[in-house]
Amino acid sequence: MLEKITKPSLMVNKAITLDNISRMLEKTKAAGAIFRPHFKTHQSGVVGQWFRSFGIHKITVSSVSMAQYFALHGWKDITIAFPVNLRELPAINHLALSAKINLLVESIEVINALETGLDHISDVYIKVDVGAARTGIAIDNSEAIISLAEQIKSKLKLKLAGFLSHAGQTYKAKGITEIEEIARCSQKKLFEIKEKLKDPSLILSWGDTPSCSMLPELNGFDEWRPGNFVFYDIMQYHIGSCELNDIAVAMACPVVAVHPERNQIVVYGGAIHFSKERIIADNGFELYGYVVEFTENGWSKPIAGAWLSSLSQEHGIVNLPSTMIQQFRPGDIIGILPVHSCLAVSAMNELISIEGEIIPCFKG
Amino acid sequence: MLEKITKPSLMVNKAITLDNISRMLEKTKAAGAIFRPHFKTHQSGVVGQWFRSFGIHKITVSSVSMAQYFALHGWKDITIAFPVNLRELPAINHLALSAKINLLVESIEVINALETGLDHISDVYIKVDVGAARTGIAIDNSEAIISLAEQIKSKLKLKLAGFLSHAGQTYKAKGITEIEEIARCSQKKLFEIKEKLKDPSLILSWGDTPSCSMLPELNGFDEWRPGNFVFYDIMQYHIGSCELNDIAVAMACPVVAVHPERNQIVVYGGAIHFSKERIIADNGFELYGYVVEFTENGWSKPIAGAWLSSLSQEHGIVNLPSTMIQQFRPGDIIGILPVHSCLAVSAMNELISIEGEIIPCFKG
Repeated sequence: MLEKITKPSLMVNKAITLDNISRMLEKTKAAGAIFRPHFKTHQSGVVGQWFRSFGIHKITVSSVSMAQYFALHGWKDITIAFPVNLRELPAINHLALSAKINLLVESIEVINALETGLDHISDVYIKVDVGAARTGIAIDNSEAIISLAEQIKSKLKLKLAGFLSHAGQTYKAKGITEIEEIARCSQKKLFEIKEKLKDPSLILSWGDTPSCSMLPELNGFDEWRPGNFVFYDIMQYHIGSCELNDIAVAMACPVVAVHPERNQIVVYGGAIHFSKERIIADNGFELYGYVVEFTENGWSKPIAGAWLSSLSQEHGIVNLPSTMIQQFRPGDIIGILPVHSCLAVSAMNELISIEGEIIPCFKG
Repeated sequence: MLEKITKPSLMVNKAITLDNISRMLEKTKAAGAIFRPHFKTHQSGVVGQWFRSFGIHKITVSSVSMAQYFALHGWKDITIAFPVNLRELPAINHLALSAKINLLVESIEVINALETGLDHISDVYIKVDVGAARTGIAIDNSEAIISLAEQIKSKLKLKLAGFLSHAGQTYKAKGITEIEEIARCSQKKLFEIKEKLKDPSLILSWGDTPSCSMLPELNGFDEWRPGNFVFYDIMQYHIGSCELNDIAVAMACPVVAVHPERNQIVVYGGAIHFSKERIIADNGFELYGYVVEFTENGWSKPIAGAWLSSLSQEHGIVNLPSTMIQQFRPGDIIGILPVHSCLAVSAMNELISIEGEIIPCFKG
């Protein structure tokens, strides 16, 4: 499968991907919840088709451009899980001609602008900040949340669909107990808000791959929106969301230099392919990826004592055990499991399945 | 100039860019040296044309793909300052039909593969590691360097053109004295190697924007290959390579949420636009960019006490002084001077001049 690889190429194992999708779907089904996977990770019409083969019809994206891309691929129910960008209202109006577009709001100002500027009636979710401190109204400010909900209900063009949260802090959580506490505590508060509004149809929508992967049961919320789980990555492995053999993507990188004197090889594969997402540990240790060897049907387990230790624009430096360094020659291909698969996919123009199929991706 | 901006857009000030080019060109001219700018920063045929208007005809790139792009834009003398990727030999052979392609080598193995695989005679430079420990033969291993030079001379398809170095450690240097020491010390050693080979035509080629910008005179080396200087960025400002008003690019980002309670606004503009390159200071302070306001003809100085403090895939969090937060509304545009302009350009499909001209870029 590697004969045609001439430059950094993000290889996808379709079988692992399908397993990841199937497992998460079953978990949401068991809880009787809606599964609305986030497509910002794979960003591909082809991978979208793999989801569709499981009967999945609702999706999440993170930009209007990405919504346009997936609408063109036939998706009809798309939540843009990013605060409405008022500069893109004309594009949102156009999009709504071909798909149901669900919007995210957190201020009166944006609600008023939508009421004036939308050409259609739109479902809106209130973004509730459950502790990530990125966007949304703070969950403890229930008065402001309810007030915004009442405002939305008074508008002709807006239909309050529910409350949407992304517990980004689970990425820094210390294990399952803390994640369970974040989810349970947020669910309780969100449910109280929903109760006060006396509208049982309101949806509590919950995201983030760590909690969707690690919670034993996906109860409590009406909708789940994980994204990264489709491919997982080293970051998720470190958090505990997945096993190493659940990781479905590996960057194939040509070896361009071998330096036995410092137990390093240099690969073609840099910041513009992986992004500069990294994991830092004590003593200044930096990790940009684990190292694997490609096999007939995929890739090996990570090589113990090997890691992608540094990235510049096009170069990657790979540290290897001294016993292995002599195995590699310029022109060989080595595999790297990325730290953050979403950003690696976003940096590439396409994915390649280990069967050799070219899988085009959205370019934003 | 901002009316048409709907999503993150990298704005270029052409006047500043031309000044940056002109200043560096004059400096190399004063030293009687070759100016071979690295085009990996702007990656654009249009910006290349700006260089050409100064009479510049030799360029550097960092990949075969980028060489292909610039060959299509009429460049005829291109150094690929990246170790030869043997997997791209057919592409190199094809490229050589339309441009003089200069290659970078550091091992006998690759030299032998070139001798076998090249369809043409190629200039090659030996990559010498002057302390960055990325690629190249260590400068203190003059025996290995000379031995490789002799090997190259014995080949029919290879012409030894000189020695190429990239002093990447200048990015971590503590001021001009340390940078001068790196350049002076390396120059002395490289010159000794050149003397031993008794070939005065051999070129000593030196790169990196910090040394090209900060050295008072560009003597000692025959050729200079800075890249980043064309746009500069916050990293270079922190190193001391430029003034703030030499920075020629600013990302225009739509404001999507305003959070006065934490003196932050959220912009559409994330890791997929800026990359995750950052500057870290004490106490966990993280800086992904400085904040500017766009004006009629460009942008303001950075706002004191304002910085891009966090990035996720599409979101950027901007910290602002409490006195300014109320000035911003969803739908406004704010400017961010990036930490690393090369990676920001690489993440975008195009640049936009402040006069509104769309400037397409290479997509790798």
